[in-house]
Amino acid sequence: MSQPLLDQLKQLLGPNGYIDEPSRMEPYLVAWRGGWRGTSPLIALPSSTQQVSEIVKICSRERTAIVPQGGNSGTVGGCIPSMTGNQIVLGLSRMNKIRAIDATASAITAEAGVILQTLQEAAAEAGFLFPLSMASQGSAQIGGAVSTNAGGTAVLRYGNTRELVLGLEAVLPDGEIYSGLKSLRKDNMGYNLAQYFIGAEGTLGVVTAATLKLFPKPQQTLTAIAAVPDGEAALKLLADFRKECGEYISAFEIMSDQALTMVVKNIPNTRLPCSRASYYVLIELTAASTHAPLGTMFETVATAALQAGTMTDAVIAENISQARQFWYLRENISEAIRKEAAAIHFDIALPPAHIADFLLHMEKRIKAITPDILVAPFGHIGDGNLHYNMCFSNKPDNFSEIKQRIQDLVYGEVIQRNGSLSAEHGIGTERKAELNRYKPPHEIEIMRKIKQALDPKGIMNPGKIFD
Amino acid sequence: MSQPLLDQLKQLLGPNGYIDEPSRMEPYLVAWRGGWRGTSPLIALPSSTQQVSEIVKICSRERTAIVPQGGNSGTVGGCIPSMTGNQIVLGLSRMNKIRAIDATASAITAEAGVILQTLQEAAAEAGFLFPLSMASQGSAQIGGAVSTNAGGTAVLRYGNTRELVLGLEAVLPDGEIYSGLKSLRKDNMGYNLAQYFIGAEGTLGVVTAATLKLFPKPQQTLTAIAAVPDGEAALKLLADFRKECGEYISAFEIMSDQALTMVVKNIPNTRLPCSRASYYVLIELTAASTHAPLGTMFETVATAALQAGTMTDAVIAENISQARQFWYLRENISEAIRKEAAAIHFDIALPPAHIADFLLHMEKRIKAITPDILVAPFGHIGDGNLHYNMCFSNKPDNFSEIKQRIQDLVYGEVIQRNGSLSAEHGIGTERKAELNRYKPPHEIEIMRKIKQALDPKGIMNPGKIFD
Repeated sequence: MSQPLLDQLKQLLGPNGYIDEPSRMEPYLVAWRGGWRGTSPLIALPSSTQQVSEIVKICSRERTAIVPQGGNSGTVGGCIPSMTGNQIVLGLSRMNKIRAIDATASAITAEAGVILQTLQEAAAEAGFLFPLSMASQGSAQIGGAVSTNAGGTAVLRYGNTRELVLGLEAVLPDGEIYSGLKSLRKDNMGYNLAQYFIGAEGTLGVVTAATLKLFPKPQQTLTAIAAVPDGEAALKLLADFRKECGEYISAFEIMSDQALTMVVKNIPNTRLPCSRASYYVLIELTAASTHAPLGTMFETVATAALQAGTMTDAVIAENISQARQFWYLRENISEAIRKEAAAIHFDIALPPAHIADFLLHMEKRIKAITPDILVAPFGHIGDGNLHYNMCFSNKPDNFSEIKQRIQDLVYGEVIQRNGSLSAEHGIGTERKAELNRYKPPHEIEIMRKIKQALDPKGIMNPGKIFD
Repeated sequence: MSQPLLDQLKQLLGPNGYIDEPSRMEPYLVAWRGGWRGTSPLIALPSSTQQVSEIVKICSRERTAIVPQGGNSGTVGGCIPSMTGNQIVLGLSRMNKIRAIDATASAITAEAGVILQTLQEAAAEAGFLFPLSMASQGSAQIGGAVSTNAGGTAVLRYGNTRELVLGLEAVLPDGEIYSGLKSLRKDNMGYNLAQYFIGAEGTLGVVTAATLKLFPKPQQTLTAIAAVPDGEAALKLLADFRKECGEYISAFEIMSDQALTMVVKNIPNTRLPCSRASYYVLIELTAASTHAPLGTMFETVATAALQAGTMTDAVIAENISQARQFWYLRENISEAIRKEAAAIHFDIALPPAHIADFLLHMEKRIKAITPDILVAPFGHIGDGNLHYNMCFSNKPDNFSEIKQRIQDLVYGEVIQRNGSLSAEHGIGTERKAELNRYKPPHEIEIMRKIKQALDPKGIMNPGKIFD
């Protein structure tokens, strides 16, 4: 990269608008979960959409690649530059203003760098709920959530980030600003350009702000853990809750006994809150109305389920602190697994009709490859997304080979069952090989055509999703 | 168009697979509301996705334009061929199979030609609700609903068609089949190609099938009409209902007194069901649970609203037949207006914070142009979409000139308020001039780039949305 280009960017950004000391660049060059590392001559930290536009214009002129980065909480290396050293990192963290809350429209407009938790808090202060929730919400930024179409625990009720976006502002690969910040629920004036940036992982432009849907703040919450014999029972229970109080289910999370065993073993001050079973379901019902009979609704379903055997035990949290303990178990599964010697992660989605069968048979097939593995699935069974994770207490010598065999097995099975290899984490760098292997070539060809049309110079996050 | 091409298509389709007698072609060449007429040498009526693919491959080879057509219930001429006679109409009506209902996934897979009402009925038979509802549901087809991102009365609760689509099957402009029929709630494997076809009005490919979300069938319905003094009161009432029972609001429709006056005048067996006011709101609450206290919730809001003056009267339907009468009023407004001498239609959306002010001031400004006009707005105030329609009992001589002046006024105001000129009807041929005039040129340029990338020969519904 040319020195004049770097100088031009630095001058544009001002002394607080960039980082180029190697010692301070580390957090922008290494993925939080590890595994991905890159280099860059400059972390650009613009403070306005106008600055982003100017940076992109300069880089476009010089054909210099840009890697947009939010909170760097992704798991697939999507916001980490390559090792070539010729990519500029464009961090959005200084663009962290909430521009407006429109109570009449139930909408909030936030810049890309606003941290998810900050947005949730701002919405709550205004009397609303912003429902997007995930373990990384203390560092994840809105622009990143939009660019990866982030999911999380509330998708079964409120949808993915895509469904929460009313309008976007983005800087295109030629530096032009797309100003689509609208609070309209209906708008059919030609192609919906916002859809092109959502989930594109920064390869078609830089999302600089979003107008997002808000919902009435819940006045009532019921949190419970139910013990269930198997995946089929969990899904039957979900169907029963849907019929009785589908409008109020804000979380329906499955946790295998192995997953909770790992939490109790590796995370201090945790214990199993109900009697033991093969699986547990964390259920949350919330309602804006104080008149919604959540307790009656829960008991109606639970009584029938206990009788039918689709539920073997259930504990309703008696207070907020107990509810938090239930969530603490769920939120610490990843961490608990990480404390073991070696782990293999999957972020798959399956059509619901396949989930029970998959859970029932896949573990045996994995153990046939390596009997010592601990298979500890958990995830958002309410939306079909399983974090089908597993680990070893002692790392085997041939771990890489085993991992490859298990990946081939699991991915092959998921594709055969018409599922997704990346339900909510995206492709980034980590899942590129799988995308290339399992997606029909003409679908990747369409993606390439869109990329070529909108970013003919290939400067926007090149090498992510596809080469 | 060459005779060999037509012969090839006819041979492929078989004797029942096309229409070329002028007398039988009329329904495919004229828009149902009138106003648009085209010509074509052939209406192709394929019976399978494979046949659609072969038709498109042949037409692509010969650079012959294709106009996909569903139930021909659109209002903007989007599925009517041009007058040149060199465009093939591709009607999807024979592709009318419901391929699968997946109860576990709450999903239904239907071919493009399935009529919306048929789909609703199939869902209901399986114990589910398919929520997309609109006056044209007896003729509108699923492929058309997807291609126009259809809206209707249930958007405030269930979203537009875009939010109801889980996966699509489509034939691309080169004849390749995109097989994306999935029932996954989460799937982030690269760009989401389904989004490209939704709302593209057939300009990027032919939608041949869709997998759509189902919801639990309501076991309880409360239908009411409330009298309100103005738009501001209607919006305040909506906010109050959202807080009390937002999860259960499945319709919130505004009707001006002028609109209902027209219905009572022009549609037999209709009467105003409550005391007179400037506006009325049709409210529908539905719940899957029998435990949901809809009556208590309604009364809680209504009591406070009557006291606060945001509501001056309210009538709850006592039985299904009365509820149908309420809906009959709403559904006949368009028809009632059409019975007058001349009408001007708008399908606009406004940010909710602008609706009350717009309703308050626009009528005066329109009457300043022409005092005899009857302004009769109605629509989906719950999602910000107004059918801001008006008519004359006696058609003025300079109607075209007046219409143009009123369009300039209304569209200018809508754009200034960051609204939409086409909330749910799309652009087609009818709104092309407005799109071109009011959309920023670089947004249209992006649309053109996408069109060029996916349909380089320009054979898919050319001349619609943009030239």
